Amino acid sequence: AAPGAPSSSYALLSISDATEVILKSANRLQPVTVSLDKALGTILAEDVHAPEPLPPFPASIKDGYAVISEDGPGEYPIIGEARAGDAESEVVVKKGTVAYITTGGPMPEGANAVVQVENTLPLPDGPNGEKRVRIVKPAKGPGDDVRGVGSDIPGGAEVLKAGERLSAGEIGILATVGAVKVKVYPRPLVAVLSTGDELIDPYSGKTLGRGQIRDANRAMLLAAAQDVGCETLDLGIAGDQAGDLEAKLDAALEGGADVLLTSGGVSMGDKDLVKPLLEKRGTVHFGRVLMKPGKPLTFASILRAKKGPGDQLLVFGLPGNPVSSIVTFNLAALPAIRKLAGWAEPELRRVEASLAQSVKLDPERPEYHRASLHWEAGKGFIAESTGRQISSRLLSMRSASALLELPRSSGVLPAGTKVSALVIGNLMAMPYSEVPKISPPADTSTAAAGAAGHSQHHGGGHSHHHGRGHSHHDGGGHSHQPGADASASKDAAGTNFFSLQKGVHGQSFDPAKAGVNAPPGGV
Amino acid sequence: AAPGAPSSSYALLSISDATEVILKSANRLQPVTVSLDKALGTILAEDVHAPEPLPPFPASIKDGYAVISEDGPGEYPIIGEARAGDAESEVVVKKGTVAYITTGGPMPEGANAVVQVENTLPLPDGPNGEKRVRIVKPAKGPGDDVRGVGSDIPGGAEVLKAGERLSAGEIGILATVGAVKVKVYPRPLVAVLSTGDELIDPYSGKTLGRGQIRDANRAMLLAAAQDVGCETLDLGIAGDQAGDLEAKLDAALEGGADVLLTSGGVSMGDKDLVKPLLEKRGTVHFGRVLMKPGKPLTFASILRAKKGPGDQLLVFGLPGNPVSSIVTFNLAALPAIRKLAGWAEPELRRVEASLAQSVKLDPERPEYHRASLHWEAGKGFIAESTGRQISSRLLSMRSASALLELPRSSGVLPAGTKVSALVIGNLMAMPYSEVPKISPPADTSTAAAGAAGHSQHHGGGHSHHHGRGHSHHDGGGHSHQPGADASASKDAAGTNFFSLQKGVHGQSFDPAKAGVNAPPGGV
Ligand SMILES: [Mg+2]
Ligand SMILES: [Mg+2]
Repeated sequence: AAPGAPSSSYALLSISDATEVILKSANRLQPVTVSLDKALGTILAEDVHAPEPLPPFPASIKDGYAVISEDGPGEYPIIGEARAGDAESEVVVKKGTVAYITTGGPMPEGANAVVQVENTLPLPDGPNGEKRVRIVKPAKGPGDDVRGVGSDIPGGAEVLKAGERLSAGEIGILATVGAVKVKVYPRPLVAVLSTGDELIDPYSGKTLGRGQIRDANRAMLLAAAQDVGCETLDLGIAGDQAGDLEAKLDAALEGGADVLLTSGGVSMGDKDLVKPLLEKRGTVHFGRVLMKPGKPLTFASILRAKKGPGDQLLVFGLPGNPVSSIVTFNLAALPAIRKLAGWAEPELRRVEASLAQSVKLDPERPEYHRASLHWEAGKGFIAESTGRQISSRLLSMRSASALLELPRSSGVLPAGTKVSALVIGNLMAMPYSEVPKISPPADTSTAAAGAAGHSQHHGGGHSHHHGRGHSHHDGGGHSHQPGADASASKDAAGTNFFSLQKGVHGQSFDPAKAGVNAPPGGV
Repeated sequence: AAPGAPSSSYALLSISDATEVILKSANRLQPVTVSLDKALGTILAEDVHAPEPLPPFPASIKDGYAVISEDGPGEYPIIGEARAGDAESEVVVKKGTVAYITTGGPMPEGANAVVQVENTLPLPDGPNGEKRVRIVKPAKGPGDDVRGVGSDIPGGAEVLKAGERLSAGEIGILATVGAVKVKVYPRPLVAVLSTGDELIDPYSGKTLGRGQIRDANRAMLLAAAQDVGCETLDLGIAGDQAGDLEAKLDAALEGGADVLLTSGGVSMGDKDLVKPLLEKRGTVHFGRVLMKPGKPLTFASILRAKKGPGDQLLVFGLPGNPVSSIVTFNLAALPAIRKLAGWAEPELRRVEASLAQSVKLDPERPEYHRASLHWEAGKGFIAESTGRQISSRLLSMRSASALLELPRSSGVLPAGTKVSALVIGNLMAMPYSEVPKISPPADTSTAAAGAAGHSQHHGGGHSHHHGRGHSHHDGGGHSHQPGADASASKDAAGTNFFSLQKGVHGQSFDPAKAGVNAPPGGV
């Protein structure tokens, strides 16, 4: 055959079929036990229970005095202290006495409630030098400002379930129950290599020669894998020779990689060697996908006995164009990586977004248009296109946090059209926009009335912007229920319900003004 | 004074005032130059330009044949090859000849267009053994399937600006222009310590004695700082003795920490030593904030000459209750950390969400209610409360990805109310929900008509769910424009516009059926 006689004889899968094939092939890795300080971002592989109740003793919620609530207001001798962490104290509170207590401190025997210090006044010492205090506002009853044993976590309670992802809060929960060794799914080891005689390693500092470009994909894919919590193995660049490529594949297998990401070498050229090698060494599950970019995406698995039964290397033959490689990483490799890492729901998350610009559709393939999402008040996510989408133009990944799922169709979607968007970036870092706090007034009358008020606020596209230095208030747009409570109305008079904190600003709000709960030291 | 005479004489700030004070005190750290493979997640501190155009030569977009477009269809001798990375080739394409070329390969002299291999047919070798090919579908004109020099990145163009955050895509962009040493803002070094005689280090494995609990805050805050890209310094637990606490503060200063997070020791007890120590050693900017949880939140700065002019340690005295500590970390410390790390927009991102449950408001303080966000088709974010919100109950941080900003008010917000939500978790890991792909039909007639179609689809709350095994189709709900293009209509006949990829599923869609662009190898 002439050079370049196409070797591709792979069926053209839809991306959803391709994803199904991938997720069927990817199996959770064997759980490992790790120190809690290494577990951030992993998925828990066991249910975790509390060995004892929290708090393990009745504990004060406030700094103040442990009292017998029936004693009521008046002057009392302070017969001792019950401090957080004080193992020695054996103070017993009897009728007519109180004990000093700090937040989290264990309730002394005899006491049944706490009066916070703000509801007391200090008194001069008594005739025999005893400390004394005036209870101004007494406890409401037994149990006031006391956390009962197990009120936060009952003894033996399940605190986390297998399958939950460990963010900072979950790490704290595990620490609080003493689970400092935890069984989790391991971080997948992802090996990355680039293919192509045209590639120059950017770190080499070499000037580009004729027909050469720098290898962007490897640095990008290593970063992408690290960004989702993987360990990585950099296998460098394979030239367009079968032996070179096979040696790298062996290195991935030997190195214990769970996933190998190659880029390039999967299209229709006579030096596109990735598919033939994968056919020879393992099972190619698919070799083409109906998508733009990324049509030559190839997926294979290679069995390996090294790590135990079921051990295998998943290979993603990503296309060489840099945009194609990172888009297919997100669409195809990332769900597999998540499944290996124990995610119960490895799929990308989908949201709806309004197009900021019109976009032209592709009549031949569904397209994954890169966009940057941000939130606009009353409108939701707005998708800003990252510009020209040709798959060689990596600048279309600049600031991209979503892939817009555009239908295979001719024509143009006008600006404002709602489209579905797969989230591929951390939206905690999306462009900031001034979304006013929407804090509708509480309605104490009925839930139905409240719901109606809500619909009036939001159904009609009513939208307030309260950015800095922008504080006008369209009071007429609000429908204050006659039943609205006093404190809400007071705030409304100051500014409005939509920026209560701004309302506090400059007013030196002092809850003490409401009554006796003034800290004696003043505000 | 009696034990427990309250020492707090700090003004009660609003959280927005507190944030303003914090962001005024926090200055960007001095940029550092790092290797590109250490830059993921950091903020760029310099503009970066491309040293040469990309591609640096006219390059083929396809595998196929470099041709003179005017030659048209017919049979041609293949006079050579122009491969990606081939530095040797000096093939010159003359009228009546073609050269084999691969994707990304440099266009040979004389050729002005590429015909992809799918538009050709191989021929038997010629009489003198020369390779030959039939061009079936010719190039559309000069430049067809050729990327011109600099068409992706013009030489000298700015590819990234100072202030941009480096995700995987940006790492790839930097690699492609050879920027393997980059000037970025450093990762802040965050020191963490817990205070309190009642605390047991969970790693000690000790059984809890009378009045003791495990230190959850330190593990949690270290994880939280690491999760946002910081380096961390674990300073352990300080007992309730001034000397102990001061030694830890010195360790933070000596260790070069940019931020110190303490937890506990900031409320109204007589052993709450953090504020007095910070007054002694630096400047306390505020000591109370009108928020729930987290009212005792304290912020101070301590000048230090060690790292150069402007060097200082920012100290966040977080409350000891575990929920208060992590909520105030997110609201107060995180924006400061982002500013140190070079973020131009360090504020938390705000979105709108509908309450899944009714929530009771607090009449005294604005409340930050922990919730888990997920997306529902046609509804947007739904906020699921994490349950009972008492600040000692760390389980209220389980799966929390947002802080709902509830107004200071009495009463109840009914389920369905839209509230504002500060995003504190990575929404790429939010609970998965079946959001159908919304892929409205393209309209080739006018943009205005398209917009009308859009409004009919979405304004009326029309919503399709096409989860797995759930494929009924309410065809009557669609308003096909008479002008809708043929390919969209074909898809609609198969299934519908809202799940085009499902439409492809099982139909073995073959673009080859449309004409000559069939790979000779078959599909
Ligand atoms: Mg190649
Ligand atoms: Mg304490």
